[in-house]
Amino acid sequence: MSSDAISPLQAEVNRLRLELQTLQASNASEPIEIGSYLLARLEQLKVTKMFGVPGDFNLGFLDLVEDHRTIDWVGNCNELNAAYAADGYARVKNHSIGVVLTTFGVGELSAINGVAGAFSEMVPVLHIVGVPSTPQQKAKAMLHHTLGDGRYDAYIKAAEQVTISQGIITEKDSAAATIDRVLTDCITRARPVYLTLPTNLVYEKISSERLKIPLSRTQPPNDPEVEAFVVEEIVKLAASAQDDVIILVDACAVRHNVCEEVNELAKKTGFPVYSAPMGKTAISEDYERYGGIYVGSISHPDVKEKVESAKLILSIGCVKSDFNTANFTYGIPTSRTVEFHSDHTKVQHGVFPAIGMKQLLPRLTARLEAFGTAARKMSVPNFRAIVPQEDDEIITHAWLWPRVSQFFQPKDVIVAETGTSNFGVLEVPLPAQAVFVSQLLWGSIGWAVGSTLGAAFAAREMSLNRTILFIGDGSLQLTVQELSSMIRHGLKPIIFVLNNGGYEIERVIHGRDRKYNDIANWNWTGLLSVLGDASLTMSQSYTVRTKSELSGLLDSPSFTGAGKIQVVEVIMQMHDAPRALTVQAELGAKTNAYAPL
Amino acid sequence: MSSDAISPLQAEVNRLRLELQTLQASNASEPIEIGSYLLARLEQLKVTKMFGVPGDFNLGFLDLVEDHRTIDWVGNCNELNAAYAADGYARVKNHSIGVVLTTFGVGELSAINGVAGAFSEMVPVLHIVGVPSTPQQKAKAMLHHTLGDGRYDAYIKAAEQVTISQGIITEKDSAAATIDRVLTDCITRARPVYLTLPTNLVYEKISSERLKIPLSRTQPPNDPEVEAFVVEEIVKLAASAQDDVIILVDACAVRHNVCEEVNELAKKTGFPVYSAPMGKTAISEDYERYGGIYVGSISHPDVKEKVESAKLILSIGCVKSDFNTANFTYGIPTSRTVEFHSDHTKVQHGVFPAIGMKQLLPRLTARLEAFGTAARKMSVPNFRAIVPQEDDEIITHAWLWPRVSQFFQPKDVIVAETGTSNFGVLEVPLPAQAVFVSQLLWGSIGWAVGSTLGAAFAAREMSLNRTILFIGDGSLQLTVQELSSMIRHGLKPIIFVLNNGGYEIERVIHGRDRKYNDIANWNWTGLLSVLGDASLTMSQSYTVRTKSELSGLLDSPSFTGAGKIQVVEVIMQMHDAPRALTVQAELGAKTNAYAPL
Repeated sequence: MSSDAISPLQAEVNRLRLELQTLQASNASEPIEIGSYLLARLEQLKVTKMFGVPGDFNLGFLDLVEDHRTIDWVGNCNELNAAYAADGYARVKNHSIGVVLTTFGVGELSAINGVAGAFSEMVPVLHIVGVPSTPQQKAKAMLHHTLGDGRYDAYIKAAEQVTISQGIITEKDSAAATIDRVLTDCITRARPVYLTLPTNLVYEKISSERLKIPLSRTQPPNDPEVEAFVVEEIVKLAASAQDDVIILVDACAVRHNVCEEVNELAKKTGFPVYSAPMGKTAISEDYERYGGIYVGSISHPDVKEKVESAKLILSIGCVKSDFNTANFTYGIPTSRTVEFHSDHTKVQHGVFPAIGMKQLLPRLTARLEAFGTAARKMSVPNFRAIVPQEDDEIITHAWLWPRVSQFFQPKDVIVAETGTSNFGVLEVPLPAQAVFVSQLLWGSIGWAVGSTLGAAFAAREMSLNRTILFIGDGSLQLTVQELSSMIRHGLKPIIFVLNNGGYEIERVIHGRDRKYNDIANWNWTGLLSVLGDASLTMSQSYTVRTKSELSGLLDSPSFTGAGKIQVVEVIMQMHDAPRALTVQAELGAKTNAYAPL
Repeated sequence: MSSDAISPLQAEVNRLRLELQTLQASNASEPIEIGSYLLARLEQLKVTKMFGVPGDFNLGFLDLVEDHRTIDWVGNCNELNAAYAADGYARVKNHSIGVVLTTFGVGELSAINGVAGAFSEMVPVLHIVGVPSTPQQKAKAMLHHTLGDGRYDAYIKAAEQVTISQGIITEKDSAAATIDRVLTDCITRARPVYLTLPTNLVYEKISSERLKIPLSRTQPPNDPEVEAFVVEEIVKLAASAQDDVIILVDACAVRHNVCEEVNELAKKTGFPVYSAPMGKTAISEDYERYGGIYVGSISHPDVKEKVESAKLILSIGCVKSDFNTANFTYGIPTSRTVEFHSDHTKVQHGVFPAIGMKQLLPRLTARLEAFGTAARKMSVPNFRAIVPQEDDEIITHAWLWPRVSQFFQPKDVIVAETGTSNFGVLEVPLPAQAVFVSQLLWGSIGWAVGSTLGAAFAAREMSLNRTILFIGDGSLQLTVQELSSMIRHGLKPIIFVLNNGGYEIERVIHGRDRKYNDIANWNWTGLLSVLGDASLTMSQSYTVRTKSELSGLLDSPSFTGAGKIQVVEVIMQMHDAPRALTVQAELGAKTNAYAPL
């Protein structure tokens, strides 16, 4: 039996054992507090950082966190930032999850937009909420942080909207099973889950027996007969495609951990690979048969031609959102497409439920390998960024992104804020094993600051290279205080602040000269000093106004390897935007028009 | 017929006319865009400021806001701060509401904690959300800011938990009625409401006929027979109380606009008046027959004795939450209490539904006036703050609050953050017509910064005096960026930052020496310069470390009347806290204990 087959079966065995455990009385194992049980599970999931804000209903649990051997408490400046950080951590730390801890009502609701973003973008995040004791809940006591009307389920109902699973601990006997259920949902479905910890149960002792059985992130095994059928169908399509087969990789390849399988498929078949915006860096962008970003009608012409004319498109983990498809302008007919998803496969018009890509892809690779020799003759566009020759010293988007792409190094983690940054980075190739972190579907401005905090922690643990953030001035204002947490925890990201005096993405969409798109101008290079590095020993800040200044900085070894947190304010022009954003906005305006523009 | 009786009847007539309007076809009146209709209603409600953050689904409506004659757009740094600002504005600007505008999903969820706080604390706030066009909603398009699964009702369901009324505009014919319905709920019930504005309907034209009928904030008339019965019951109780009748005023007196009625009652009867913490300044604290704050077991002994021994307590607008009652330690038997609420009255154990205090109180005053002469002989404790003599220069809480009380001026608006500030200000009297703004029930740290922004706008419009904020360093970190909006809009609050190195309220509750209650130390006096006043022409910042330094500052005319935004960092000791907080925390710890402390 192949190892591909063993892993899902072993996972199934573990799940069944846990179900048995739930039904059996707790036994002779060493008792453990419920709070510690939860931490033990998180440790098994390789969680080393917990984000959040202390509040009076989570303080008892925080004692356990602070005393834990391998899990560190990261006290954030506010809960939304903490949720963003948990999201960023989970995106970079493969095979783990992000964890955010808040307090009842005020804390959890402040975090909910960050959790909703993790839902939308399929990021495994656990939201733990410290809640009042179960007797207080039953008595509907009018405690602070309540709505004053005795509704103790209101926040749970809100959480149900943005998490796939909720664990409401109300007594000790089912606590372990509840914790295991939500964590299993989190890791197998790559979405946020919600868990409440009442103050009076945190230290209740339960059996630790279940901890001996690890939680499985592997999906249940595909039905072998259906899977074999699907493989043959795809092989037939590939054969009739006369070698003109391409791979299009997208967000869910990253979220559902099939990047290795996709790489194997690509390398063994030689099929050209393209990426949707949300799949950027799922395949290392220095790969010789990688052709760049496909984003419908606004793709670069040679990419568009190659992808849309291919006889067969193996579309892996696609998310067909507006920004990820240039406003739904994919030029790929269903009859030439195979879609691979975590929980189903779609061959042309036919859907095969419960045939997940994690197990399907290796088997398909084995059969498609034979096409390799011929496929390798198909040419692939060269994804390069050429720095344009411009006559003046103004830092334009057209110049900026190709120029910074030369500054990137292998294994850099590059975080791009929704807005001009995201659309700008998209269009330039990133180095080998670089990790691109963005939030194109949810698109919450300010997200990237918190996310960078989490990503930088994860990057350090994963032995990745620098963490680099690109963010606009408007977006940075939403979540700026989290720079303080970066300083406090000795993280050393490089933060490019694109200063164009406001919300440029919105100016492109609507209200080009409206005052509501303007913001207050801050002293961006003074932020780090005020937010925790008063002595200026841990940080460095710069303002660059010209191409020469920025180029000089990017080439300077004291900058590129500073080993400090650095802020670079980049002075740009209002109304300048990356090409992709401008075209996207034009497309979007047609379907979302206000009457008088 | 008395004017007391006319006003509710007129309100009822208007409501019925509007209902008729809804059923009649729209007529010959000048058509108006739906967005402008909404703004016209807000103008009628004396709204002059709209808080929020632009986002791509609200930009069209923002054009109308920006062009409006009397309503100004206040672009906030983030949505939570905007919601807090709307809350602060509504708290200070009587007979108006707070308005916050966000965008679909990302924006509205970021604001939800602020809206929930308005629910809990009974503050009239309208949350307008710009949402995708109705065709896009029907098509369940996978737009950015969606959860990616076509659920376009998810955010509405979350909003239902924290607003009393939701207006989901889906077509133009019912738009005006929907707008009027949620606004009427908002003003009559003093709670937040939720309204969605789809991009394609903002500029749709509708009849403006309904605008001729103003919305009524007056409650429906009480049943005259029941009301008369209630009045007589209370008069009997007062008569048998042998002049030992007191008035206890609380939050809902402020929220439901009966402060004038309560003042009339107090002045015409001479009954001693006390206030619960959430009712502070409902009666001007310089009033000669005002005895101070009653807060259950932690009241000052003479207040406790007077209130708890009174033969009859007229309890007006009480909110019996944990922090407002010293953990439910009211020593007032129901048999000696009459509770006045916005929508019912409770005489001893008997509940009288639909007998609201707004109309009941004037009638009761007329009948109770006769008790005045005798009641005025009952003594009232003198609510004074005496600055203690302490041997050292350390700024303690015991010294700070009495000392700053000497600095307050009539008509100052004093905002206290949940935590040490709130408990500290409670215990000192505020000058004539000062307005106290706090959030004792909801208790969301960071709220006070946004709230101060809104309060300062309202104070300016209401010709009040200075706006003064007290906030801890830990709380300020959550929402610090909103200082920038104060600078940008030329507001001039005085902001005292109590720097004790972390979350002191939590240290008092649990984790006295835990690291999770520490925060990064910022350069607090550098904030204003970085957040918008680079030239230091609009602001001034100070650090005070000793009693002498602070006293000197408080006495300095250049400080007290600076006409600039000012930050005062007050260096205090870790583990020092106001008496009321310490006792409250001890009481709370008993019912909310974690096993190992």
